[in-house]
Amino acid sequence: MSSGTNKRELAKMQADGDGPAVILIHPQMGENIGACARAMLNCGLTDLRLVSPRDGWPNEKAVSASAGATLVLDRVRVFDSTEAAIADLHKVFSTAARVRDLVKPVVTPREAANEMRGHWSAGRKVGLMFGPERTGLVNDDITLSDTLISVPLNPGFSSLNLGQAVLLIAYEWWMTGVEVEDRYLHTGQSEPATKAELQNLFDHLEGELEQSGFYTHPDKRPSMIRNVRNTLQRCGMTEQEVRTFHGVIAALTGRKKQRKVEG
Amino acid sequence: MSSGTNKRELAKMQADGDGPAVILIHPQMGENIGACARAMLNCGLTDLRLVSPRDGWPNEKAVSASAGATLVLDRVRVFDSTEAAIADLHKVFSTAARVRDLVKPVVTPREAANEMRGHWSAGRKVGLMFGPERTGLVNDDITLSDTLISVPLNPGFSSLNLGQAVLLIAYEWWMTGVEVEDRYLHTGQSEPATKAELQNLFDHLEGELEQSGFYTHPDKRPSMIRNVRNTLQRCGMTEQEVRTFHGVIAALTGRKKQRKVEG
Repeated sequence: MSSGTNKRELAKMQADGDGPAVILIHPQMGENIGACARAMLNCGLTDLRLVSPRDGWPNEKAVSASAGATLVLDRVRVFDSTEAAIADLHKVFSTAARVRDLVKPVVTPREAANEMRGHWSAGRKVGLMFGPERTGLVNDDITLSDTLISVPLNPGFSSLNLGQAVLLIAYEWWMTGVEVEDRYLHTGQSEPATKAELQNLFDHLEGELEQSGFYTHPDKRPSMIRNVRNTLQRCGMTEQEVRTFHGVIAALTGRKKQRKVEG
Repeated sequence: MSSGTNKRELAKMQADGDGPAVILIHPQMGENIGACARAMLNCGLTDLRLVSPRDGWPNEKAVSASAGATLVLDRVRVFDSTEAAIADLHKVFSTAARVRDLVKPVVTPREAANEMRGHWSAGRKVGLMFGPERTGLVNDDITLSDTLISVPLNPGFSSLNLGQAVLLIAYEWWMTGVEVEDRYLHTGQSEPATKAELQNLFDHLEGELEQSGFYTHPDKRPSMIRNVRNTLQRCGMTEQEVRTFHGVIAALTGRKKQRKVEG
């Protein structure tokens, strides 16, 4: 899928350094580790830590599932304990399928992303902790985290796999750094038409409509003109499209050869 | 991963009916169709339309990859053309990897979600169109859509697979309907302590500290008390935790047997 390539984003990512660490506790399938690495790099994260991965490390299945996220896989660190894996971090956010008898603040991925960005901006290191597939985090690991993340999906069908959960939360982190001014009208090779070029097109069209007897009721003429102009205005035409429409009008009126096309 | 079960969300989903349709143009792998169905249902979407799926329909691999999203798969409709698949829709949003020489508004998933919610609230039917794996949408299909969606990921590594792209955009749609007031402190089986219970704990602690000679400099006593209280205050203790801490203090001072634990 497409991405707005953007120097600001690249600069931001470099300024961020690693971004939050992702800590996978006892991950089972290499495919899932690879999918996590891919989702992380999609969102500019590169610090992946594994606590006692079931099938050891390195893992060939992780490589093939990562879609080329070697920048992440090459830097993976493996730990024997959750405590060791998070020792250098200041704040840890965890996803937890079930929480019993533990008092923790619970936030959405979007709220977590905003909090993480705040910590990060203040120079604190943050981490995102995910439990093993199927079972999720045990209470001892949840106790080590500051805040729980609950993804508020369809309550009747809320199960995400590990890679999808990492993607959604990493995506929210990434979005906290993306400026929304990226919105634009993609105009291909042509520049937007000037208002004069557009007016010239309207004049051409209305002149031809006049000659063709389109305006049968003189009192309705102004509103008819306004409606047609307003419709075409909304197209947001480029220079090239204005030229094309001059040609369309000329062709429709059979004057293509008699009348020089403007533009 | 966890989900905040929420009656408001359920009610919203029922009120929404189908939500936006998802239209997959020439999807190739059944696994990807299944992953799309799963991501859709995670986010409350149920209207999946396929245009000329490569391996026909139904597809066993789609079923096994859907993680039980049969509510979506059972209602899939198959079409021969993009035009037929979108005929009943008012607005179509498309993801497009490459756009050449086509003038279209381009928005982020979050902006698209807000626009879709607006259309939906006004009673207009909207759709999300995705092209085939690898090649993406052809220009003829892009031309049929109103707006392009560009996911502003890491410009150096922006490729998403089909299921991930559907998940991110469907997630943004879902989030436009989730109220953020869901934020809460999960307190398990116990209720938050009252301020009186907390004050009782402070009194207990400070009395013991007094007796132990903790406050060697009388002038610093008030600020020392304030600091300890402030630290414990931030725990947001439950009734049960207050009782536990009375026990902790009693144990530390060796008075467990002499002093009845409050609470």
